[in-house]
Amino acid sequence: MKLIGIDLGGTEIKAGLVDEDKGLLKKTSRPTEVYKGPDKIVENIYEVVKSLSPDLDIDAIGIGSPGSIDRKKGIVRFSPNFPEWHDFKLSKKLNKLTNKDVFVENDANSFTLGEWYFGKAKGMKNFVAITLGTGVGSGVVTHGVFMTGNDGIGAELGHIVVIPNGPLCGCGNRGCLESIASAKSVARHAKELAIRYPDSLVLKMAQTIENIESKHVFKAFEQGDYLAKTVVQDTIDAMARAFGAYIHIFNPEMIVVGGGMSKAGETLFKPLRERVKKYIMRSFIDTYRIEQSDLVENAGILGAASAAIFQTREEK
Amino acid sequence: MKLIGIDLGGTEIKAGLVDEDKGLLKKTSRPTEVYKGPDKIVENIYEVVKSLSPDLDIDAIGIGSPGSIDRKKGIVRFSPNFPEWHDFKLSKKLNKLTNKDVFVENDANSFTLGEWYFGKAKGMKNFVAITLGTGVGSGVVTHGVFMTGNDGIGAELGHIVVIPNGPLCGCGNRGCLESIASAKSVARHAKELAIRYPDSLVLKMAQTIENIESKHVFKAFEQGDYLAKTVVQDTIDAMARAFGAYIHIFNPEMIVVGGGMSKAGETLFKPLRERVKKYIMRSFIDTYRIEQSDLVENAGILGAASAAIFQTREEK
Repeated sequence: MKLIGIDLGGTEIKAGLVDEDKGLLKKTSRPTEVYKGPDKIVENIYEVVKSLSPDLDIDAIGIGSPGSIDRKKGIVRFSPNFPEWHDFKLSKKLNKLTNKDVFVENDANSFTLGEWYFGKAKGMKNFVAITLGTGVGSGVVTHGVFMTGNDGIGAELGHIVVIPNGPLCGCGNRGCLESIASAKSVARHAKELAIRYPDSLVLKMAQTIENIESKHVFKAFEQGDYLAKTVVQDTIDAMARAFGAYIHIFNPEMIVVGGGMSKAGETLFKPLRERVKKYIMRSFIDTYRIEQSDLVENAGILGAASAAIFQTREEK
Repeated sequence: MKLIGIDLGGTEIKAGLVDEDKGLLKKTSRPTEVYKGPDKIVENIYEVVKSLSPDLDIDAIGIGSPGSIDRKKGIVRFSPNFPEWHDFKLSKKLNKLTNKDVFVENDANSFTLGEWYFGKAKGMKNFVAITLGTGVGSGVVTHGVFMTGNDGIGAELGHIVVIPNGPLCGCGNRGCLESIASAKSVARHAKELAIRYPDSLVLKMAQTIENIESKHVFKAFEQGDYLAKTVVQDTIDAMARAFGAYIHIFNPEMIVVGGGMSKAGETLFKPLRERVKKYIMRSFIDTYRIEQSDLVENAGILGAASAAIFQTREEK
């Protein structure tokens, strides 16, 4: 199959021409121009599609978007990046312009499918995929089935409670993994502590408290900074507890981790792997691997293309 | 299909003749006589089989047993009730006597399959089954697949951490659901508190601290006993946190709960259902039911028979 994958962000549309067997063939991007309104965004997507394949010599188009997506109908119910989109029939609108099948999928599902078709979990029957971005996204393949549950809203691994009565999470609960291990939460935790540690490297790197991001925390951690150590150790312990749960529940071959925060690489993964061992039963030792995604900047495009492959197959 | 289901306990062998469509036709039991050695146990099972179906007019035999079972090979790796059994070829031994297919399955898997074929979750594509017995057993059907994971050891929902650094669990970790919400843990918690509350109803019912069981705690809870309230509320909160996780993860249609402690009925289920709402995101409200198993005393027999049905089908 030949596809176009669209990674639809609030500021940029990233797109690529993807061959199912050969992977990413070429890619491009352009500004999303959210301020010009919904229909202009669809036109911008169309423009990007045509620039990648002028005669539309493709089988389908996949779009990965944050927010709540009705994947069966190709509707964006709502999305934080596109405040004007309410039940927006994205699939139908782009289909009118291109006359191609258009599939829309949320970014966590796209990421999981991308890992399944193009990433480290390629072809695996049992794996868990986690994205550590602004939030914590996740997906599961178990016994070769892409698991979404009875209403298609499951696999929310970021909303299991790892610290009872912990920090307030966006979902309304307290102490969910997302409230501790997302890039946003790591930054928030560091900001809170920065007031007490004004000489921390984190603050030197970020210059002001408001500017602190998770990447500053991980860089300072590498250099032994005390504030950073506190934050990273708490984060890793919460993650390890959640990963332990995933291992007991799914007995997966692999947990593959992507998203902005995963770029910390071995600084994050080495202590995480060690810590996870503390939270699993003996019988699970050496049954799994915890790996950093290697799709990197193309994860969004390949994920979107994968959603189109998956939905084309599923429908048949 | 016509089957014999064997619920193999340390003191008693419970067995039933089961018709796939009509359910349990008749049942019987006899002492296990563990002290007479492994081969005598197999003979005792054979005797029970013949008493239920003298001409062995059955399609297969299913055996449900606690412990670590190699279901593919029908081997009991080890079982707390049968200290002499190490890699015991139970399936092969009974097959020699009966010339019938014999399938062995651990009790948590049997319970789940029993609920799927004969219980409240009959025919469901997405449900979670939990037994609150001495330990916490569990099983999952997701998208119509009986989920066991890459090595067949997954669905260990009792070993997710619900209280970090909580009580020591049999698995070596701390604060697992099993360390708080099993009958054994409830009794242990009550015993610890009984020293401080010598006038508690729990102690009056049990007469001595050593005799305290989870059923005393739930009975005293109904009568407003302070000690019992403390224990039950902690237990329910831990269970609710775990159930919230299962709902986010599997988006199941039902969580069906069995095992000795589930006999507390609405005393347990009513506050549990209320508490679970605290731990789920808005989008999951009204997507699931939490139900008490109605297989009761026959759960073991029907579960064992179901394991035989499932494995017969799976093999074909």
